[in-house]
Amino acid sequence: MSVGKGYVIMTKQFTSHLNIDALFLGPKSENAVFFREMMEYAVSEHMHWRSDFHPEDPALVTSVDRYAPDYRETLYRTEGILNQLSAKLKNTSVPWFSPRYMGHMNADTLMVSNLAYVMAMMYNPNNCAHESSPTTTELEIEAGLDLCRMFGYDPRRAWGHITSGGTVANYEGLWVARNLKTMPLAIAQHPQSCDLVEDKSEQQLLNMSSSDILDLTDELKRRGIFEEVRELSCRGVGIKQGMFGKVLVPQSKHYSWMKAMDVFGIGQEHIVPLPVDEYYRTDVAKMREITFSLIEQGEPILAMVTVVGTTEVGAVDRVDEVIALRQECEERYGASFYVHIDAAYAGYASAMFLNEQGEFMEYDELIRRYRELEIIPEGVIWPKPEIYQSFRAMCHADSITVDPHKVGFIQYAAGAVCMKDKRIVDLISYRAAYVFEDVNDQPEQPVNRRVVLGSSIMEGSKAGATAAAIWAAHRLVPLNINSYGKVIAAGIVTANWMVKKLLATEPLVVGKRCFEIHVMPHPDFHMVNFTFKERGNDDLGHHNRLNKRMYELCSYATGRTYTNDFLTSSTSLGYSEYGDTPWHYVASCGFRREEWNKVRSLYVLRAAVMTHCLRSTDDFDEYWERLQKIFIHKLTQVVDEEEKKKVV
Amino acid sequence: MSVGKGYVIMTKQFTSHLNIDALFLGPKSENAVFFREMMEYAVSEHMHWRSDFHPEDPALVTSVDRYAPDYRETLYRTEGILNQLSAKLKNTSVPWFSPRYMGHMNADTLMVSNLAYVMAMMYNPNNCAHESSPTTTELEIEAGLDLCRMFGYDPRRAWGHITSGGTVANYEGLWVARNLKTMPLAIAQHPQSCDLVEDKSEQQLLNMSSSDILDLTDELKRRGIFEEVRELSCRGVGIKQGMFGKVLVPQSKHYSWMKAMDVFGIGQEHIVPLPVDEYYRTDVAKMREITFSLIEQGEPILAMVTVVGTTEVGAVDRVDEVIALRQECEERYGASFYVHIDAAYAGYASAMFLNEQGEFMEYDELIRRYRELEIIPEGVIWPKPEIYQSFRAMCHADSITVDPHKVGFIQYAAGAVCMKDKRIVDLISYRAAYVFEDVNDQPEQPVNRRVVLGSSIMEGSKAGATAAAIWAAHRLVPLNINSYGKVIAAGIVTANWMVKKLLATEPLVVGKRCFEIHVMPHPDFHMVNFTFKERGNDDLGHHNRLNKRMYELCSYATGRTYTNDFLTSSTSLGYSEYGDTPWHYVASCGFRREEWNKVRSLYVLRAAVMTHCLRSTDDFDEYWERLQKIFIHKLTQVVDEEEKKKVV
Repeated sequence: MSVGKGYVIMTKQFTSHLNIDALFLGPKSENAVFFREMMEYAVSEHMHWRSDFHPEDPALVTSVDRYAPDYRETLYRTEGILNQLSAKLKNTSVPWFSPRYMGHMNADTLMVSNLAYVMAMMYNPNNCAHESSPTTTELEIEAGLDLCRMFGYDPRRAWGHITSGGTVANYEGLWVARNLKTMPLAIAQHPQSCDLVEDKSEQQLLNMSSSDILDLTDELKRRGIFEEVRELSCRGVGIKQGMFGKVLVPQSKHYSWMKAMDVFGIGQEHIVPLPVDEYYRTDVAKMREITFSLIEQGEPILAMVTVVGTTEVGAVDRVDEVIALRQECEERYGASFYVHIDAAYAGYASAMFLNEQGEFMEYDELIRRYRELEIIPEGVIWPKPEIYQSFRAMCHADSITVDPHKVGFIQYAAGAVCMKDKRIVDLISYRAAYVFEDVNDQPEQPVNRRVVLGSSIMEGSKAGATAAAIWAAHRLVPLNINSYGKVIAAGIVTANWMVKKLLATEPLVVGKRCFEIHVMPHPDFHMVNFTFKERGNDDLGHHNRLNKRMYELCSYATGRTYTNDFLTSSTSLGYSEYGDTPWHYVASCGFRREEWNKVRSLYVLRAAVMTHCLRSTDDFDEYWERLQKIFIHKLTQVVDEEEKKKVV
Repeated sequence: MSVGKGYVIMTKQFTSHLNIDALFLGPKSENAVFFREMMEYAVSEHMHWRSDFHPEDPALVTSVDRYAPDYRETLYRTEGILNQLSAKLKNTSVPWFSPRYMGHMNADTLMVSNLAYVMAMMYNPNNCAHESSPTTTELEIEAGLDLCRMFGYDPRRAWGHITSGGTVANYEGLWVARNLKTMPLAIAQHPQSCDLVEDKSEQQLLNMSSSDILDLTDELKRRGIFEEVRELSCRGVGIKQGMFGKVLVPQSKHYSWMKAMDVFGIGQEHIVPLPVDEYYRTDVAKMREITFSLIEQGEPILAMVTVVGTTEVGAVDRVDEVIALRQECEERYGASFYVHIDAAYAGYASAMFLNEQGEFMEYDELIRRYRELEIIPEGVIWPKPEIYQSFRAMCHADSITVDPHKVGFIQYAAGAVCMKDKRIVDLISYRAAYVFEDVNDQPEQPVNRRVVLGSSIMEGSKAGATAAAIWAAHRLVPLNINSYGKVIAAGIVTANWMVKKLLATEPLVVGKRCFEIHVMPHPDFHMVNFTFKERGNDDLGHHNRLNKRMYELCSYATGRTYTNDFLTSSTSLGYSEYGDTPWHYVASCGFRREEWNKVRSLYVLRAAVMTHCLRSTDDFDEYWERLQKIFIHKLTQVVDEEEKKKVV
């Protein structure tokens, strides 16, 4: 099996020479010539592949055919529709590529992944089955293993694959967790396997660890009854309401978890929300308290979800504490649970911790190398020690969601899920056999890998082109400190500088009014949340409306984004998701507690700083100068609008 | 709302001038010049969009930067990875584009959809939320409504959207069906709504029709308790094992249904398989018998799945009989059920029944127009009257899966699901508000449609480029008899000719051995299943091995497909999926009943004839001449291999 070999070689050859600007088309299409040349190459290569296939075949479409009026008209009509599409796209698309855009987790995407997509799309592979995608199924498996390695999973035991996005990846995590959870009960029911768990109470059966259950499935396979027993799990017989306990999810829960609880028939009421601390991370003390209390009440825990990079503030949960908690529960109570990490947003940042050999570095070594490679300059503190510990602990989770279409700089739609122990796939697989089995029933042929991804994942048909895009990205930009790490760091550094500038800015004066800028300090990743606060205003509702209006003026909500000077996104941090956590920020803006108690919601501007373009201090400072003027301009607009309303 | 307006106009202007060959790149890249030009256009348009955005911004990547060695090296490395990818793709991809490929549901894809994809991909929209895809969310809604209209749904009441494939589309059908089914019980439980169903027994609550339940949800919304009640349905509280009955699926069930029963926590054992008749369609008499018997036993039916175009033989279930059966059940027993059509394969053929105004034509009119437009020539009978009735009845189903990436000639991954009554979305939606609501809270701005697809569908992030591809295809090739109908008919006609030739072929002589060709007559759609039968062989096992070997010689299993002369796919028709149905074919090949009883499996070559290239009789006849020689060549190989083995 050659998987990963080329990866290592390239890593070695290449890491010292990666130029970030050469990876993207660029904010002014600086790489236009190269991109165009490569696009032409991608298309030509395929066209020749067609015309070189059985050149002896008769011409089915002759030049005379092509001269026919209806032929020409059809081509012109095609052109017309593309003109129309182009006009639509130009009119309302959002300029992610520009550093003037700092909003959702969007930025420019890698040239190589765009080109690889087009190249593969021409061949139209379908990664549902190896037969329909002999090339790209291999690439998907390689790309999946790249991600597994990045997270510290053992590539011989783990597996990862591409999904249409983080939502489906989260689904799959919950799916395997659910099916795994009911296996011990099924084992206890089957006459030929009940001996394996005869010493266990139902309570204990529902609290077994993932690895213990998977070891039992090995035994079931040896006994030839794996499939029979699996049919007795919820997969076969359906769910018994409430029987397998709770899913613990941070209170800020992404709505994909609500959907997941619905989809898998578990029921949304079986989510137990975990409150967040003042950093918007899962509150460790409360998480422990809730977990112990559930276990003590005899309530099994189906799964614990922990988030690495929340979509609202980019917070990184204390993964190390989750893993430690699980171990403590196992030791103290003999009760274990499944751990899934939703690292859709920040997962790729794992690359920032790996040296060129793919090893997770010690903290001091890491910081030394950041400085040496000029990846993170003096004055920017990243990662904080607890963030470092969280990333370090990811390898102990059972499964991880990560989105190449976020911080992997791949175009949509490209999510992925990694599982620590590939045996778990058999709990959801349609086929009994391992999906990975190397079958070689015809020795004269190369190994015929009977990979039918569609039978072992949620989705069925899927574009092989996506696999090509991710594979190519990982080859060009290996998942280590000096490649992906460098690209991702550019955003983190810029975000840190941005926070500093926002903190240090003198209030902006518009006529007789004066606006302070407040910002959440010390982001865990590269998301900056900030607000404008009018001096003298002690009304939180009014404050929220001001910032909502600022968002509207900095977004598609008030017209074409193309003609806008600055674009961002926004979010509401409400009591129901975050408890009193936003109060800290509200207080720092100078509002009284009564205001928070009344409004219980904080509207903030939210900027995921993913751009790689502002990593030089000169460029950043120049950008910041302009941005301040833009802020004043926008505030002036708000003030004018308010004045007009008063007059009316 | 402008949705669909442009569609009608284009239909009118264009239908008489569509040239099929001008839609595809072509088997020898005949449209290379045009395609290249348009690709260059797509890329240039975007590049200029970038450089025209705030031209005053400073150059962040200068020409001096680009001259740096690491910059050049990064570009060369990019090129190197693309070289490598191209080599991989060329080496093992499957030449779908050629008429020499007749296997899976693959063929050439529309130029316009490939170009539209690339064009939109450059802007990288994400159709999860309107904010991230102001252009392509609109295109997705339009494309979804195109499909709804094609199936005869009322576009004001229906809705459709794009999924990553047919599997996810099927999931969504089952998801809404499941949540809908538990609503009446939830209504009965809530103190403020129980009056609505107080006259109903639990039995009756579990047997309500979709439309009656949806009418009740309207009343819940009026009372302001919709969300509270919804939380009492299985969405909120989880599934009660076995409580809502059975899902009836044709015995030939696609494995996505087994996955779906697992995913939704219903349990695979709650599938009731419906036997197929001699045409591999769901056996109507048995379907009726099973349905009545379940109802009489007091077992509710959660959903009935009916298939329009099975993946193994292309059979079209009697949709009209399913709809009639449901009506009968409602009248006789007061028991209704949800109907989902899995038309992933043949769904686009609905376009073949619509005139240019989008109206479903009467049978005689349809045949007259096929002849008049030279779409289906004399001598080819399509559709059979019962197929016609099945397509006609599709508009009565609750939901329909259809794959643009199959007979829509769109590249992967592009599935879709249509729902008859969009109110049903609220049963799975994360938000309470209708996804479609036109919000206009800022009268000076154009309608701000707050469409957050991600909160109302299974998936989250999704490529807006897919929507652009499908939208563009529907604009260029409207969904009616003379556009999509014409393209799809090319395959049907070729498939019919193929069947005739296969039926009429004299046995092929290889040395002293003689091989008959047998074929399943009268395909419902354009899938041709056939086998080679050696004269004198009365061993079905041997027959199966012969055909398996023929498949291997006509597929990637024995080497590069690129150097092969003919490529097809294959399938096993076994007793467990099809009962005794394959026996009819086995008998027609001359095997005795005992052989069938012993082997109970029939291996067939399976060719989805989707090519548009052989629609002229001259081209087809020439193709057929060559194909016969290829068959003899392949059979000779098999014979030689057998002889060699004997010698050894």
